[in-house]
Amino acid sequence: MTEFELLARILPTLPTHEQVRLGAGHDCAVLELGSPAHQFLFKTDAVVEGVHFTPSTPPEKVGRKALARPLSDLAAMAGTPVACLVTLGLPEKFEPDWVTQFYQGLNQLARAQGVAVAGGELTRSTSGVFVSIAVLGTIPHGPALTRAGARPGDAIFVTGELGGSLAGRHLDFEPRLAEARWLAQHFRPHAMMDLSDGLAGDLRHILDASQVGAELLSSAIPVSRAARLQAQAGSAAKPALLAALTDGEDFELLFTLPSARAVPLLDAWHGEFPGLKISCIGKITAAPGLRLRAQEGLRELSLHGYTHFAQS
Amino acid sequence: MTEFELLARILPTLPTHEQVRLGAGHDCAVLELGSPAHQFLFKTDAVVEGVHFTPSTPPEKVGRKALARPLSDLAAMAGTPVACLVTLGLPEKFEPDWVTQFYQGLNQLARAQGVAVAGGELTRSTSGVFVSIAVLGTIPHGPALTRAGARPGDAIFVTGELGGSLAGRHLDFEPRLAEARWLAQHFRPHAMMDLSDGLAGDLRHILDASQVGAELLSSAIPVSRAARLQAQAGSAAKPALLAALTDGEDFELLFTLPSARAVPLLDAWHGEFPGLKISCIGKITAAPGLRLRAQEGLRELSLHGYTHFAQS
Repeated sequence: MTEFELLARILPTLPTHEQVRLGAGHDCAVLELGSPAHQFLFKTDAVVEGVHFTPSTPPEKVGRKALARPLSDLAAMAGTPVACLVTLGLPEKFEPDWVTQFYQGLNQLARAQGVAVAGGELTRSTSGVFVSIAVLGTIPHGPALTRAGARPGDAIFVTGELGGSLAGRHLDFEPRLAEARWLAQHFRPHAMMDLSDGLAGDLRHILDASQVGAELLSSAIPVSRAARLQAQAGSAAKPALLAALTDGEDFELLFTLPSARAVPLLDAWHGEFPGLKISCIGKITAAPGLRLRAQEGLRELSLHGYTHFAQS
Repeated sequence: MTEFELLARILPTLPTHEQVRLGAGHDCAVLELGSPAHQFLFKTDAVVEGVHFTPSTPPEKVGRKALARPLSDLAAMAGTPVACLVTLGLPEKFEPDWVTQFYQGLNQLARAQGVAVAGGELTRSTSGVFVSIAVLGTIPHGPALTRAGARPGDAIFVTGELGGSLAGRHLDFEPRLAEARWLAQHFRPHAMMDLSDGLAGDLRHILDASQVGAELLSSAIPVSRAARLQAQAGSAAKPALLAALTDGEDFELLFTLPSARAVPLLDAWHGEFPGLKISCIGKITAAPGLRLRAQEGLRELSLHGYTHFAQS
């Protein structure tokens, strides 16, 4: 049973009530808590030693990443983080210095984004370190920006460059909070999410939620330098484009807009965020499925983007 | 370095801002989020296989306990839970049925307490299961009910019976949410908390936060049947009273009130919560320290309540 099949079994059983405007299955839960100014975003995310970092990862980078991940989920819905709580599971024999350095990295990002670290707990782990961070944030009242809402004819955009994140960027990425809020305010994307599992797989979440398809333009996909270097490094590596389509932990924004807004967006973006690349990588189609247009023609991308592609 | 020494090093470094009315070091964080009706409580709590439950614990009891613990922290501050998020770390080879049963237990308690399960995530664990649950709740505006505020002369109360929780009650306890809200509304305790680490250790948190001392009356401490049975079971067991003073995971309410309110409270309580014992177990003193009055006289309790006691 896959994670998705298990979730499909669990999600319908979860208790809910009218204060939960959006529950499980979105980048964040959306809560109506009686504030005239805001709705609230609520999100948790965990990182685990041996899965999301290694024993040799510098602790300040573990702390930074553990907070940056749920902040990226708040960015996916154009939220403003307010406060977080940190649960830190530590093996019986831990280094106190590891913990203080972990908090140095975490606190630095929290300060930069105006997030209070309002508490949490230390608990015991029976193997390596695990960290779970809960974040509470705000969004304006009104319909939330979600993965649903992409429409045929929309242009598809992505920030930054994709692929090869494990070479280092997964520890240093910037959650795109300011960019997402600016987008929501000035260009109101039809659908938005953050890239955590790879472009091809994540875009499919938008397509499923919006009941549309998409066509990506191979040459427009912004392939990172890290993905290119890895592809050159050896025969075992993926082609760079495949890495950009399928590598996880990019934590960039993926969103769609009416195509008539594409040029105004690109113009305004370069003035607002000159240091961050933005790319129009394709279009939403009424026909379902995800296709890639390359020199050799149009081909279907399979569920996670790589099966057909690697074989072709 | 103990957990408390480590926390003492970390807590002063945590970023905060004016929306955080109470941060780390309280049963819950208290946030001011612009709602005219409420302030908000924010809390996370984790349970770990091999620490808080075993591989043979029924999964529905694991789910129930994982949620009941942070709900007990909300009870400690007389809050009303609104929504929670569940982070579930699973080993590579897990039983899907374990997960659905885990959620059955969790969902049942959530429904009973009106808590929405608004999302969460499944992640990988490199050893046993771990669970971290974040809960958001409300309290009225005004000063929050905390561990600080106990005054010399206050009577000290505890709900239920104490000790021996590991025999089973730690998996089945009821978070005292309704009782705590009723107390806050009708008797406004000076200080309150929930018992998680044992009466002697937890009461010390109230004494430290309130800068007072206390005297407990040995014969008034409500010793559970489980603690008595364990004490009879063998020479290795603790005396029952010591278990009631030092065993963890009671999850009962500990609070103080002006002594003139003690009799009215006891009267009203029996009408309101006839199924739940309440005991006046001692008094707050201006003199610092924690003392136990027994047949043999008055004796000082050490930091965790058992060192001197076990030797005497």
